[in-house]
Amino acid sequence: MPNQERRDDMLSADEALQKILEAVRPLERAETVPLTQAAGRILACDLTARVDLPPFDNSAMDGLAVRAEEVRGASAQAPARLPVQALLAAGAEKGTALLPGQAIKIMTGAPVPEGADAVVMKEWTRAVNGMAEILHAPKPGEHIRRRGEDVRRGETLLPRGSLLRPYEIALLAAQGWTQAAVWARPAAAIVATGSELVSTGTPELGFGQIYNANGPALAAALGRWGVDTIDFGIVPDEKEALRGAFQRAEAEADLLLISGGVSVGDFDWTRILLEELGLQVVFWKVAIKPGKPLLFGIWNGKPVFGLPGNPVSALVCLEEFVRPALEKQKGQAPAHPSYHLQGVLGADFWKEEGRQQCVFCRVLESPSGFQVHVIRPQGSAMVGMACKANALAKIPAEARRLTKGTPVAFRWLK
Amino acid sequence: MPNQERRDDMLSADEALQKILEAVRPLERAETVPLTQAAGRILACDLTARVDLPPFDNSAMDGLAVRAEEVRGASAQAPARLPVQALLAAGAEKGTALLPGQAIKIMTGAPVPEGADAVVMKEWTRAVNGMAEILHAPKPGEHIRRRGEDVRRGETLLPRGSLLRPYEIALLAAQGWTQAAVWARPAAAIVATGSELVSTGTPELGFGQIYNANGPALAAALGRWGVDTIDFGIVPDEKEALRGAFQRAEAEADLLLISGGVSVGDFDWTRILLEELGLQVVFWKVAIKPGKPLLFGIWNGKPVFGLPGNPVSALVCLEEFVRPALEKQKGQAPAHPSYHLQGVLGADFWKEEGRQQCVFCRVLESPSGFQVHVIRPQGSAMVGMACKANALAKIPAEARRLTKGTPVAFRWLK
Repeated sequence: MPNQERRDDMLSADEALQKILEAVRPLERAETVPLTQAAGRILACDLTARVDLPPFDNSAMDGLAVRAEEVRGASAQAPARLPVQALLAAGAEKGTALLPGQAIKIMTGAPVPEGADAVVMKEWTRAVNGMAEILHAPKPGEHIRRRGEDVRRGETLLPRGSLLRPYEIALLAAQGWTQAAVWARPAAAIVATGSELVSTGTPELGFGQIYNANGPALAAALGRWGVDTIDFGIVPDEKEALRGAFQRAEAEADLLLISGGVSVGDFDWTRILLEELGLQVVFWKVAIKPGKPLLFGIWNGKPVFGLPGNPVSALVCLEEFVRPALEKQKGQAPAHPSYHLQGVLGADFWKEEGRQQCVFCRVLESPSGFQVHVIRPQGSAMVGMACKANALAKIPAEARRLTKGTPVAFRWLK
Repeated sequence: MPNQERRDDMLSADEALQKILEAVRPLERAETVPLTQAAGRILACDLTARVDLPPFDNSAMDGLAVRAEEVRGASAQAPARLPVQALLAAGAEKGTALLPGQAIKIMTGAPVPEGADAVVMKEWTRAVNGMAEILHAPKPGEHIRRRGEDVRRGETLLPRGSLLRPYEIALLAAQGWTQAAVWARPAAAIVATGSELVSTGTPELGFGQIYNANGPALAAALGRWGVDTIDFGIVPDEKEALRGAFQRAEAEADLLLISGGVSVGDFDWTRILLEELGLQVVFWKVAIKPGKPLLFGIWNGKPVFGLPGNPVSALVCLEEFVRPALEKQKGQAPAHPSYHLQGVLGADFWKEEGRQQCVFCRVLESPSGFQVHVIRPQGSAMVGMACKANALAKIPAEARRLTKGTPVAFRWLK
């Protein structure tokens, strides 16, 4: 069986990911950015609240501020009647005290007047002959948001390492801040190796040439994950050119992505040269399809990935192995790859035993759940095939023959 | 029951979303962008392949190119022996024809020589006394990627409306293109209304004041969805100021987000003024919590959302209702909100009947699946509470008492 994989010299995909996460260190290079640019970034220090939230007792409703005990028996059948002493809008410039036996008309967000302990929502009040009728007896505290009930001044607002989502941006803004101390974005170098590659924009392909697809595709993915990229373009399979490119990449970037030259061919210099230059190889080859020749190591403290040259393999390795490494560099708890969704196979699927397979699929939602349709044929060089997929299913290494209806885990391709 | 919602004058969340998607039109304003900036954009026209992919027959492996029939009986026990005529690297500058009775050493990606119809992978070959031994009999076509097997010149490469993910970027690059015609990003205006609001950066809050959290938080979310924002800052609850801000926003943006002033208070001018200015109200109020006072309409063909003033409500409405509208404006099939994940409640949960509730939760993964822990107390003004959540669970309107262990749908908060 020539295609039978010999697993013994290869790590499983899970083992490989674990070794990557053990080897990669957070960058912990802090910078201060305006709040408008802080979304998706990771907080570089603990933040302490400087103001209570809400900053003052305020009304959660438009209605009437009252003393609950004064309208205790009120109902639609037997409304309480009170004169309206004042009107309090949100943004009112000074405080007001509620006089006994009276009500104050109050708007959402306005400060609750001294003496009032409840708000009756407008829908349960009525104006009759210049008086207010109250059709409901509120409980003390009803529809009042208490000062500090959400956040208390002096408490930890957010711990270091928090991901700044729009909710965290709202929280920082609510404290009055315009900027935040966050970890810097990692810079990833992209080096596309291969004497067959020519740059996009070259009018015609010569004999045996293909366009460099990895450079643009890897940069596109990284950009969407909040990573800066330095594209070193195409380097032919020549030792001196490769050595120079690797050294420049190491000097400028926090992480190196080198595509091509990681297999067993006569011109596959990537691993050999990197080792000469000082790369500590953590692993070479993973029991995954596509992506088997993946190389990972550390060079002067920087993670280096030798990605397969085929764009489909390179992009799968990027999501499965590089993204978690970048999340760890960013100071974030690695959350990818996440195969949290489950569907059932729409047809029988056979695979080789011994390698976890990432299968390009079209997943359709049906009333009974997700139907997973494998795109055929699959191929690690078939970018057109991959573009027909909306999901990637993960089939375990030990599986061989899966029948229609078998549950499989998948993730959306975004 | 003063808190009982009266559903009869309100749309359900699903009905509201449907009305939004019926009313919003794609912008269809095309622009050409470099491939490096095209990720996440939507293709504005059908694309036709200009080159075959792969562009020529090439080897999928490092190994030996042979005529399959000449090594028919080869095995590890009885290897075939052939002289090696030449070495073909990827990027070879000219073609070679395989002579009868010989083999050509070939690298992954190199053009298959004329006359060869199979590649034996290196692992199944051996060099012995200057000859090559072949330990496996390949099938015709084995390890050869045929010209055009993925994409044929002249066929539709990608249809208009395709989302450009990294795979599509790879496909466009593989065609040699450096740019793409895509739909322009929508520009959304953000107007934060409320006399109680002061700008972040103001050193101290005055009596009854709060910082404007909606402006920065909405902009943060929109930026991550590929939408440009024009922030009109804070406008007090004064008719002339509001009218001017709304008109400027309408003149400059494709979609308007106005927070605050959409409830029933005496200074809630948003809806009234917008109607005076020509807004066609599609709906006001939705049976959802938080987010009930949501206003939606069309003004001079532009979608206008009146969002609740509380940041938590505003952000929930943004994901549930504004994001699908923006996806439609972008020319994309609306895919959000997607509550595709399911977990079970970690404790009993009671809610009011009549409104769908979006509940902030901490979801934990356990061997038996996802455990959903509701954060308490929930409150539409409690941004600190929302920051403790990693997920939002959707509880249907008709539900009232859910016991521990009840399955609920949720989505991650990103």
